[in-house]
Amino acid sequence: MSDPTRVFRHRHLLGIEHLDAVDIIQILDLADTFLEISERPIKKVPTLRGRTVLNVFFEPSTRTRVSFELAAKRMSADAVNVSGSSSSRTKGETILDTARNLQAMNPDVIVVRHSASGTPGLIANAVDAAVINAGDGTHEHPTQALLDCATIRRHKQQVAGLEVAIVGDIDHSRVARSNILALSKLGANVRLCGPVTLIPRGIEHIGGDETRERVKVFHNLAGALDGADVVMMLRIQNERLGGTSLFANTREYSRYFGLSARTVAQAKPDAIIMHPGPINRGVEMMPEVADGERSVILDQVTYGVAVRMACLYLLGGPPPPDQAEA
Amino acid sequence: MSDPTRVFRHRHLLGIEHLDAVDIIQILDLADTFLEISERPIKKVPTLRGRTVLNVFFEPSTRTRVSFELAAKRMSADAVNVSGSSSSRTKGETILDTARNLQAMNPDVIVVRHSASGTPGLIANAVDAAVINAGDGTHEHPTQALLDCATIRRHKQQVAGLEVAIVGDIDHSRVARSNILALSKLGANVRLCGPVTLIPRGIEHIGGDETRERVKVFHNLAGALDGADVVMMLRIQNERLGGTSLFANTREYSRYFGLSARTVAQAKPDAIIMHPGPINRGVEMMPEVADGERSVILDQVTYGVAVRMACLYLLGGPPPPDQAEA
Amino acid sequence: MSDPTRVFRHRHLLGIEHLDAVDIIQILDLADTFLEISERPIKKVPTLRGRTVLNVFFEPSTRTRVSFELAAKRMSADAVNVSGSSSSRTKGETILDTARNLQAMNPDVIVVRHSASGTPGLIANAVDAAVINAGDGTHEHPTQALLDCATIRRHKQQVAGLEVAIVGDIDHSRVARSNILALSKLGANVRLCGPVTLIPRGIEHIGGDETRERVKVFHNLAGALDGADVVMMLRIQNERLGGTSLFANTREYSRYFGLSARTVAQAKPDAIIMHPGPINRGVEMMPEVADGERSVILDQVTYGVAVRMACLYLLGGPPPPDQAEA
Repeated sequence: MSDPTRVFRHRHLLGIEHLDAVDIIQILDLADTFLEISERPIKKVPTLRGRTVLNVFFEPSTRTRVSFELAAKRMSADAVNVSGSSSSRTKGETILDTARNLQAMNPDVIVVRHSASGTPGLIANAVDAAVINAGDGTHEHPTQALLDCATIRRHKQQVAGLEVAIVGDIDHSRVARSNILALSKLGANVRLCGPVTLIPRGIEHIGGDETRERVKVFHNLAGALDGADVVMMLRIQNERLGGTSLFANTREYSRYFGLSARTVAQAKPDAIIMHPGPINRGVEMMPEVADGERSVILDQVTYGVAVRMACLYLLGGPPPPDQAEA
Repeated sequence: MSDPTRVFRHRHLLGIEHLDAVDIIQILDLADTFLEISERPIKKVPTLRGRTVLNVFFEPSTRTRVSFELAAKRMSADAVNVSGSSSSRTKGETILDTARNLQAMNPDVIVVRHSASGTPGLIANAVDAAVINAGDGTHEHPTQALLDCATIRRHKQQVAGLEVAIVGDIDHSRVARSNILALSKLGANVRLCGPVTLIPRGIEHIGGDETRERVKVFHNLAGALDGADVVMMLRIQNERLGGTSLFANTREYSRYFGLSARTVAQAKPDAIIMHPGPINRGVEMMPEVADGERSVILDQVTYGVAVRMACLYLLGGPPPPDQAEA
Repeated sequence: MSDPTRVFRHRHLLGIEHLDAVDIIQILDLADTFLEISERPIKKVPTLRGRTVLNVFFEPSTRTRVSFELAAKRMSADAVNVSGSSSSRTKGETILDTARNLQAMNPDVIVVRHSASGTPGLIANAVDAAVINAGDGTHEHPTQALLDCATIRRHKQQVAGLEVAIVGDIDHSRVARSNILALSKLGANVRLCGPVTLIPRGIEHIGGDETRERVKVFHNLAGALDGADVVMMLRIQNERLGGTSLFANTREYSRYFGLSARTVAQAKPDAIIMHPGPINRGVEMMPEVADGERSVILDQVTYGVAVRMACLYLLGGPPPPDQAEA
């Protein structure tokens, strides 16, 4: 358990790349304590009352937006949604002008999703509010990795020493990148598995020397799953498969890299099965696995709200002790 | 007046088909007591504070969504909107996976509108939250029927014994189906009126033996209105009329089934005029009727908020007596 | 400072045309006192708790909608968004029926943006709620003019006697029309500057005899800026320029009417630079001006929230003294 009085030493949450193991564990510990708030009949605490959280989604995502909105409201913050399609960007405004305009309305936290890698970082440089990256291009999706680590820790007690297989389109996955960093920083060994064309060269090095030794690449599912404690399947985006030289279609992909009752048997008997959602049933994962007793996919969603409450708490508040409430 | 200590015996509100007269009256009585909350300067009670209401509209409907959102907020619940166009369904997720994912965020009530009949029932089977059907395909729209009954009762003191004419496209109307069930269960006699092609064969039987004797079909407006206490006009969806063998266009339709100052005179002098909205002025209803003193169309809208407050209250819980607020 | 006990003498805010200087100053004074609420860690006061504010945007505008939504939430009102694209208008409902339906849900304030001039006024005639015009066609955008006046007053102490240049497409700008009225009523001299085709004949007369003497038209930028205390640039809508007989494209426009480091030097050395946003950088304003130290563009955005809090307060009511909270 981390020190509850520790001050979080970051102003923004732009990526796991900026966090160390102590930072990550601080968030996970806090998320654990927030988990039960959502299980109460009255699932609301006054912690962030009067704080403003802007959910700025330039790229639509119901799931993530709802999770952040619920997290904000259960902390009593005021949450306002700003969607990309209706944003000023359609009138030609630059992203920095949009950011500065949002800042001028005095938000405490700006949650940003954008199709361009690096946009949350750009915005963070332009504003006083805390910025939380809710997914940027193929770069990072840090709260997804944090909720994944929280789920793993809940089911496996600790992350260090685990063998975690991440299977799918590693190249285009911000979920994979954030998880490689988070899991290796917490001491897990990460096996990346997918077609040659969907795993970028040198991916083992993304976390520097520290993670290099913890990350291994596999091109066949059996090898990646052998002895795995955790199997994390990525979503296959059908439109991308056509462009690979390896697979003609999703059926081909599914045959080699899909997780079924047969292939999952190669992992440890108590391995847990994860997926960031939404699932393409019958493509990357068969229904018997998605709905099986080792699946923790819905726990991930539940932890999503708790992890986001923790991030909002650490970055958007609490009021300083001498701040008397009006 | 129903017993205020009665426990509502349903977990969901999927259709009037599952309710009996006592259930319906319980909701109407509660709606009556909630009506004045919306008339106060401070139109808010703490009853559902900390409860989460998800408004999941796979089919857009500003009117109904705003009514549910206001009902939730006036009960102090946290309301989060999830629209269909931005939902994960566009990424190929099944409706059950969407439902399970929503459930994993611990909502208390999920309000669902969907273009496919039966979807709210499917979702109800997959979740712990209470599900309220806000309109599913051509199946049911129970809160509409409840607000209609509440409005009728307010103006006519009781529903039993009234002659209620429902006029229009009965075949495609979930409003009609829910009203036939609700009105006949409350003891009203229901006259269904429309072109032969827009009234399905055997519609008299939809409520079973109990309602069969209370439901009659008319193909001319004069007969249906003769002696009617209540005239409920349905919205004509222009695109459907072209497909009938009876009418070339809305003008033809309006001539035979539109409610005008002339045709409304066939009903009782104190008959009230209803419409679920939005009105096609000049098609199913002439302005002099819509805006006339016998029109209670806007009362229906006002009761909509109160009925939905009542449904959220009965299904979203008051906290159990031993649940101390945090 | 205006008398804080003065009762605001309008039920709606449809345009600056209906206000006199005392009304305007009352709003500005109140906005000044609300400004600091948004700077607190806990940026929320209970003033409008339990009031319902409907943000009805038939024409999309993220910026203005977010500003009103934050203003409502920081006053503790319940804010519900109703967007045009998903509204009943797509089903053929008249604007008056939409208004009456919204009224039937007992809102306290209806904020309306619409592409047709006069729509907020039509709605105001049909409802009991207070209506605030958030921009209607080419008519008025009163809260924009109020936030502009508040910003000018903050930087220049008073508005009376200032020389204010408004530059751009005056003809299509509701911002310009509201500002001409507000500024001249407060005693400023207004210089309108733009191509002949974009300044309507007789614009000097829009405020009647009172404003006529205060409004002058210029067709060259140097003349308009000479001695100006305030330079307010309007947004150029590219699609409109093509229709003028003067300019082939935005580059031509920018050359003659764009504000650059060179052209801004013609104004007073301490002139402030304003823009209602979103900015077309490089068209009506060069980045060195937009981001320069004389730019108060972001202050305008900050004042936007405070001015809207003031308008909601004055029109949405404080509770009468004898209204005990439930």
